[in-house]
Amino acid sequence: MVPHLTTALTGPINELEQRVLESMPAIERWFRLEWMEHTPPFYTSVDLRNAGFKLAPVATDLFPRGFNHLTPEMLPLAVQAAMAAIEKICPEAKNLLLIPENCTDNSFYLASLQRLVQIFGQAGLNVRLGNLDEAQTSPRPLHMPDGSEMLLEPLVRTRGRLGLKDFDPCTILLNNDLSTGAPRSIQYLHEQYLLPPLHAGWHVRRKSQHFRSYEEVAKKFAKLLGMDAWLIHPMFGSCGELDPSTPEGLDCVRHHADTILGKVRRKYKEYGINEKPFVVLKTNNGRDGAGILALRDAKELDSLNDPLPQRLHKSLHKGLHKSSHKSLGDNAADTGMTEIIVQEGVQTMERIHSAVAEPVVCMIDRYVVGGYYRVHAERSADEDLCGPGSSYVPLAFAESSQLPRPGVKPGVSAPNRFYMYGVIGRLAMLAASYELEATDPDAEDYD
Amino acid sequence: MVPHLTTALTGPINELEQRVLESMPAIERWFRLEWMEHTPPFYTSVDLRNAGFKLAPVATDLFPRGFNHLTPEMLPLAVQAAMAAIEKICPEAKNLLLIPENCTDNSFYLASLQRLVQIFGQAGLNVRLGNLDEAQTSPRPLHMPDGSEMLLEPLVRTRGRLGLKDFDPCTILLNNDLSTGAPRSIQYLHEQYLLPPLHAGWHVRRKSQHFRSYEEVAKKFAKLLGMDAWLIHPMFGSCGELDPSTPEGLDCVRHHADTILGKVRRKYKEYGINEKPFVVLKTNNGRDGAGILALRDAKELDSLNDPLPQRLHKSLHKGLHKSSHKSLGDNAADTGMTEIIVQEGVQTMERIHSAVAEPVVCMIDRYVVGGYYRVHAERSADEDLCGPGSSYVPLAFAESSQLPRPGVKPGVSAPNRFYMYGVIGRLAMLAASYELEATDPDAEDYD
Repeated sequence: MVPHLTTALTGPINELEQRVLESMPAIERWFRLEWMEHTPPFYTSVDLRNAGFKLAPVATDLFPRGFNHLTPEMLPLAVQAAMAAIEKICPEAKNLLLIPENCTDNSFYLASLQRLVQIFGQAGLNVRLGNLDEAQTSPRPLHMPDGSEMLLEPLVRTRGRLGLKDFDPCTILLNNDLSTGAPRSIQYLHEQYLLPPLHAGWHVRRKSQHFRSYEEVAKKFAKLLGMDAWLIHPMFGSCGELDPSTPEGLDCVRHHADTILGKVRRKYKEYGINEKPFVVLKTNNGRDGAGILALRDAKELDSLNDPLPQRLHKSLHKGLHKSSHKSLGDNAADTGMTEIIVQEGVQTMERIHSAVAEPVVCMIDRYVVGGYYRVHAERSADEDLCGPGSSYVPLAFAESSQLPRPGVKPGVSAPNRFYMYGVIGRLAMLAASYELEATDPDAEDYD
Repeated sequence: MVPHLTTALTGPINELEQRVLESMPAIERWFRLEWMEHTPPFYTSVDLRNAGFKLAPVATDLFPRGFNHLTPEMLPLAVQAAMAAIEKICPEAKNLLLIPENCTDNSFYLASLQRLVQIFGQAGLNVRLGNLDEAQTSPRPLHMPDGSEMLLEPLVRTRGRLGLKDFDPCTILLNNDLSTGAPRSIQYLHEQYLLPPLHAGWHVRRKSQHFRSYEEVAKKFAKLLGMDAWLIHPMFGSCGELDPSTPEGLDCVRHHADTILGKVRRKYKEYGINEKPFVVLKTNNGRDGAGILALRDAKELDSLNDPLPQRLHKSLHKGLHKSSHKSLGDNAADTGMTEIIVQEGVQTMERIHSAVAEPVVCMIDRYVVGGYYRVHAERSADEDLCGPGSSYVPLAFAESSQLPRPGVKPGVSAPNRFYMYGVIGRLAMLAASYELEATDPDAEDYD
C-alpha cells in the first residue's frame, strides 16, 4: 500500500514529473549511455527532498543501510541486481566478505545487515561478516532482532589478501563508511575487489566534491529535458578548513550563506514561490543528521541568543564525533578546525499524517531496487545511526513503485511520483560515480 | 497469494528440493560460470512437469507468450532484466522493433504482446510492432483486451536493414516462432540484431537437438549436486523422416517406445515408484499442444480401436498444420512424411482444485522474472495458440516466489518449490543456449 502523502503539488514539480514521464525512453537511454562511460557505485542510497516546487538529493550514501525497510515483494529485484553486480565484478566468486559498521547494537542496523546477507546469499554467494575492529580477536555472535544469530569474525590478513579463518573471498563488500578512517587491514588489497573503494569512505570523501559532480550531472540532464537545472539541484558553496569557534573563522560561511540566499531569493521570485529561503550548514565529510544547522539569514551567525559560534561548533562536532580517528592525524575534534559546506535548504513538503517525510531511494549497481520514507517524528531529529534508537518510522514504497503509469495526470499517481524519485536518485548515484573517478588516487596511472 | 497445490510429495522430489536449496550458492555460481561461456537466449519460457518423484522440462519456448500471466508485482523484475539484456546487446538503442505472431485475434496473445511492449517501453525503448505478413501493406490497428489499440505496421526492408516507416531499430525482437518459415524480409540482417536468431525458429529447430543439449546440461548439473540426472531429465529417442500412415513407417517409433518404456520401468523399480510408465510422441518441430500422443505400450501403435496410424497421423498433423510453409519446400503436410520424437512421459502430479497444473517459468536474459500455472480444465486439452480461446487458467506465482526460504522443511514451502522450478527452468534455458550454438549456421566461420 502506498502511504498517503500530502504534497504541496504546485507548479514546477508537476511539470517536472510530466517531463520526466514523457521522456522516459530518452532518460533510460541517457542512463545507459552514461553507464557505458562510468561505473556505478556498488550500492547507493539517496535521500531526497521534495519541496513541492523543487526536488533534490540532499545526501548520497555509498555504504547504505536501510535495506530492512524494503518490502519483501521487492527482494527479488535486489537479488537480481546483486547477481548482475557480482557477475560483472567476479563471476567466479564463491565467497563474499561483508564488513559492517561497528555499531552492532543498533537493531535497525542489524536488520539491514541481515537483509544484505540474505540478498547476497540468494544471489549465490557464501556471505560471512568480518570485524573491522582490530582489537576484537575472537568471533562474536550478533543477536538479530528476529532472534537469530550471525557471527562477526576477526579479519585475517595475509600479504595481498584479506579474509577470515578458512574463508578466502573474491570480493570484500564494505558496509562501514570509514568515518573513523581506514585501518591497515583493508589497505593495499590489490588481489581482491574492495567495494566501494577506500576513497569512498568518509575519511576521504567530501560533500562539496559530490555536489560539484551532481551539478555537472544535473546540468547535462536538464539540457536533455530542456529544463532549468535548479529544479533538481541545490546550490552550494564550501569552505576550506576553518575554526567555527571564532566569528572571524566564519567569514567564508557568512559569505556563501549571503550569496546563496540572494540567488535563491531571485529564483523564488522568478518562479513565484512564496517561501522564505534558507541555507543549511553541514560538515563537509561524515553523515548528515547531527551537525546540520539551518539559517534564514547570514546574520544569525552573529546574533543568536545562545552564543552562536559555540553552538555551531557543538552542533557540528556532534556530527563529527566519529571523524576523529587517530590514524587520520589532527582534525576538527582535536584542533577545533573543520570544513563546512553551505547548501541551499530544500524544504520537504511531504507529510505522512503530520510528520515530515523524506523519500530514500535504494540502488544496487545501476538499478533502483526500492525505497522508503524516513519520517521524522520531531522536527529536528537527531539521527545518529549508532544511537540507542532512531526517531524515524520507515514506510515502504509500494511494490511496483518504480514503474510509471503513463497517461495518469501528473501529481496524482504515486507510481509516477516514485519513478521520478528513482530518476533523481540515479542522477545522484551517477554523480557519485563521477566523484569517485575524480578522487580516485590510482587514476593518475592512466593519465 | 500462492495457489494451493496438492502435490504427491513423496521421496525423491523432496530430496531434490532439499539438495537444491542446500546447494543454492554452488548452483548460482555454476550458472554464472556457464553464462561466461554461453549466451542466454533473449527470452525463454519453460513448461515443467512435476511427477512427485521427478521434475523435468517438457517444452522450451524461445518465443514466449504468457507475459500477461505475470503478476504486476513482478513487472519491475522483468523490466530490470530487459534493461540488462538491452544494455549488453545495444546500449545506445532508442528503438525496438517487435515482430509478433500473426494470430492477432487471440486475446490472450494480445495481452501478452501488450505486456511485452510495456516491459521494453519501461526499460527505455520506443517499441513498435512490425507485421511479418508481407501481404499486409498498410498499418492495421490491433484491438487490445483492455480497450486500447496498438498499431501493427508493414515492415520496410532496405538493403541491410529492417524497420518501419520512419523507424530504424537497433534490435529486432521476434515473438513469432517462424513455424511457417522465415520470410526474406528478416533474412541476411547483418547490420542489426535479430533476436532470437533465425535458427531458433521452428522451421529449423528440432526438439531432439534441444533435449540432447538438455541431457548434457542435466548430467553436468546432476554431477554438481551428486544426484541421478534422471530425476530431472526425461529420456527420449528421435526418428528421422518417416511416414506415420503405414505400420512400417512406425518401426523406429516402436523401437524407441519399447526401449524407453523398458528403461523407465527399471528406474521406477529402482526408486520404488508404483506407477505405470508411458511415453509421449511429438513432432520433432513446432509447439506442443496438439500432436501429442501418449502410449503405455508400443503395441498400442498396432492395436487401437481407431485405426491407429491414421489417428497418429491426424493427431500429429493437427500440431503440424502451421509447419507447412511453402518456402520450406516439401514437408510433412505435403508428403505425408514427418519427424517424430519419443519421450518418457512425466506425469504432472500437481493439482489446483481438481485440475492438472503445469508450472511455466518465464525468463528474460538469464533471469527468472516470474511464472504461472497452466491449468488444464480437461485432460487432453488442445492448446492451439491461434485458436478461439485457451482451455487453461493462468495462476500467478506469488510475488517473491523466486526466493527460497532456507530452513523450511522441504515440500511444504511454496517459495522453496518455486526456487527449484526456477533452477530447472534455467537448466532448460541453458540447454537452449547449447542448442543454438550447435545449430548456428554461422558458427563454422570460427572453426
